[in-house]
Amino acid sequence: MTYSEADHVAMARALQLAERGLETTTPNPRVGCVLMKEGSIVGEGWHRRAGEPHAEVIALRAAGDTARGATAYVTLEPCTHHGRTPPCADALIAAGVTRVVAAMEDPNPLVAGTGVGRLRAAGLAVTTGLLASDAHELNIGFVSRMTRGRPWVRLKTASTLDGKTALNNGVSQWITADAARRDGHRWRARACAVLTGIGTVREDDPQLTVRAVPCERQPLRVLVDARLDIPLSAKLLQGGGCLIATAIEDCEKSAALAALGAEVVVLPNGRGKVDLPSLMRELGDRGINEVHVEAGLKLNGSLLRENCVDELLLYVAPMLVGDAAQGLFNLPELVQLDRAIRLQWRDVRFIGGDLRVLARPLKAGT
Amino acid sequence: MTYSEADHVAMARALQLAERGLETTTPNPRVGCVLMKEGSIVGEGWHRRAGEPHAEVIALRAAGDTARGATAYVTLEPCTHHGRTPPCADALIAAGVTRVVAAMEDPNPLVAGTGVGRLRAAGLAVTTGLLASDAHELNIGFVSRMTRGRPWVRLKTASTLDGKTALNNGVSQWITADAARRDGHRWRARACAVLTGIGTVREDDPQLTVRAVPCERQPLRVLVDARLDIPLSAKLLQGGGCLIATAIEDCEKSAALAALGAEVVVLPNGRGKVDLPSLMRELGDRGINEVHVEAGLKLNGSLLRENCVDELLLYVAPMLVGDAAQGLFNLPELVQLDRAIRLQWRDVRFIGGDLRVLARPLKAGT
Repeated sequence: MTYSEADHVAMARALQLAERGLETTTPNPRVGCVLMKEGSIVGEGWHRRAGEPHAEVIALRAAGDTARGATAYVTLEPCTHHGRTPPCADALIAAGVTRVVAAMEDPNPLVAGTGVGRLRAAGLAVTTGLLASDAHELNIGFVSRMTRGRPWVRLKTASTLDGKTALNNGVSQWITADAARRDGHRWRARACAVLTGIGTVREDDPQLTVRAVPCERQPLRVLVDARLDIPLSAKLLQGGGCLIATAIEDCEKSAALAALGAEVVVLPNGRGKVDLPSLMRELGDRGINEVHVEAGLKLNGSLLRENCVDELLLYVAPMLVGDAAQGLFNLPELVQLDRAIRLQWRDVRFIGGDLRVLARPLKAGT
Repeated sequence: MTYSEADHVAMARALQLAERGLETTTPNPRVGCVLMKEGSIVGEGWHRRAGEPHAEVIALRAAGDTARGATAYVTLEPCTHHGRTPPCADALIAAGVTRVVAAMEDPNPLVAGTGVGRLRAAGLAVTTGLLASDAHELNIGFVSRMTRGRPWVRLKTASTLDGKTALNNGVSQWITADAARRDGHRWRARACAVLTGIGTVREDDPQLTVRAVPCERQPLRVLVDARLDIPLSAKLLQGGGCLIATAIEDCEKSAALAALGAEVVVLPNGRGKVDLPSLMRELGDRGINEVHVEAGLKLNGSLLRENCVDELLLYVAPMLVGDAAQGLFNLPELVQLDRAIRLQWRDVRFIGGDLRVLARPLKAGT
């Protein structure tokens, strides 16, 4: 299928609209829709949050009768199911749209193609795949949950150029500068959950909320705490919305935590630790698309080792502190370089005075 | 002083010519010269190596009689001293050049301005400072030696993204890929000396020669070896051109090393180690402009600690090996972040599949 320049422009606009829902659509995907007729946009829309209208419906409302004969550009295959809103495929058909271009099919293998099929059956010209890779990246968490049953896990670190996240005495505030911290909060804001470990709670007592940038809804906070050691005074427990994964049953502590609005899930791995892949499946079951990890070198290492990291988001400060300081990842000692975790670079740029690196483990995921 | 576009173009060309001597002029600076008359280049030249003609002389020869009334663009103030070649200032005057633009003055404070003065006394219009910062960077080692009595020291490392240069068992071949290794050899080739430590000799037995790229002259090899432990079979000793800095007197070993073409200098620091600042002064006295360091974390750390590093050249591979592996810099444990070594980013780019970072310690040098 070849697409015209006008097709590309319209889909790029639909993707831009979809991105407006970056921080709010969870657990739904980010979706945008543009209706074009005779070279002009006659309606556009984007999905803001679950329970509110889908992008196609908003665009159709805006277009009204002019939707008849129009082409719809949607960043995701229109839905066919009756959820909290009626199926978008039916709405497009009813409005008289004659051509539909979808950037990608529904990532859920059980649903993929049903929207396209229903539209085609009604006589519409339907194609998919225009700017597919952008659409895929935009909903990488939703795609992950639909195809793997677990969220997309992005692990964030802030280190010196010699790979140290904190001094040996725990001092880490602040290695990176304001701009990098704000950027980090933007990544927190788009995640459905922010995850840390009990070590970080002990050392830094973080809130793990989005504060440095505006945010319509706070991500769920998730704590990995094998022995349920979290003090009831921890800042993480303030303001509700905290899920604690543990390896032990402790009804009394769990009740005390519940009284503070936290929920405890017991997911032991048989070695006294939390089973991290099970935790990821649990988060997937709860509709978490993207997880943002901010932890210490132990949990970072465990997540990497257990194939639970899909992306690294590394802020690197122009600073050296030497080998005595704390490193990035606690991993078993290697004796051969071919056992190293290989990465694919995604993006390297300056954020203020710090360098930001995005990279993905080549063998992550299952 | 404001310069025209033509002035900028001519000086940029002179700098480009000067750069041709990047790997050969040592201990001299890299210098280029362009003679312009009525908007055309009538002669150009660059200095290839010590004892051969200076850039100005080559350009004047090329121009012949057309040099009369021309403007000379030189990347460094013309010399006034009788060395192995006669003074360039006199040659420019004799040829009838009427205007001289020098990118920078001679960095030697005892000489600076004498060329400009002689030219002005002869009635020529002389200005300095056009593209001065490029000219300064091109001869950063020569400038360092002239102004500080010691070379510009560039420390090269190859590490994983988590800041590890080797596994705990010493395995380090190869963390970075071919393109980065070739690039590293290009930096070796421009240096007047390549420096390493006895630890690296023990672990890797390197040749420290320039091999991956063409090279007209091999840099001097310098070894820091406090107890003169180097085995006589070390590859470093093959092919001559090796200076060994030690902290002990050992006439027998020194004689054996001399028989292999190596020279031993005894520079103890009173704590059983080589006095690194003294070594740098010694190298400066020997006409070494740029030193390229490829060492392990101990010598790297000592050089940093003793303010002997002017620039970091870090190749970073898309790979993680975990905290058990060997780090970049052995430094005393810090308890406060404000004691960290702060850096200024100079350049970040991909070299093949690896990332290359150039940065400079903010307080280096004395």
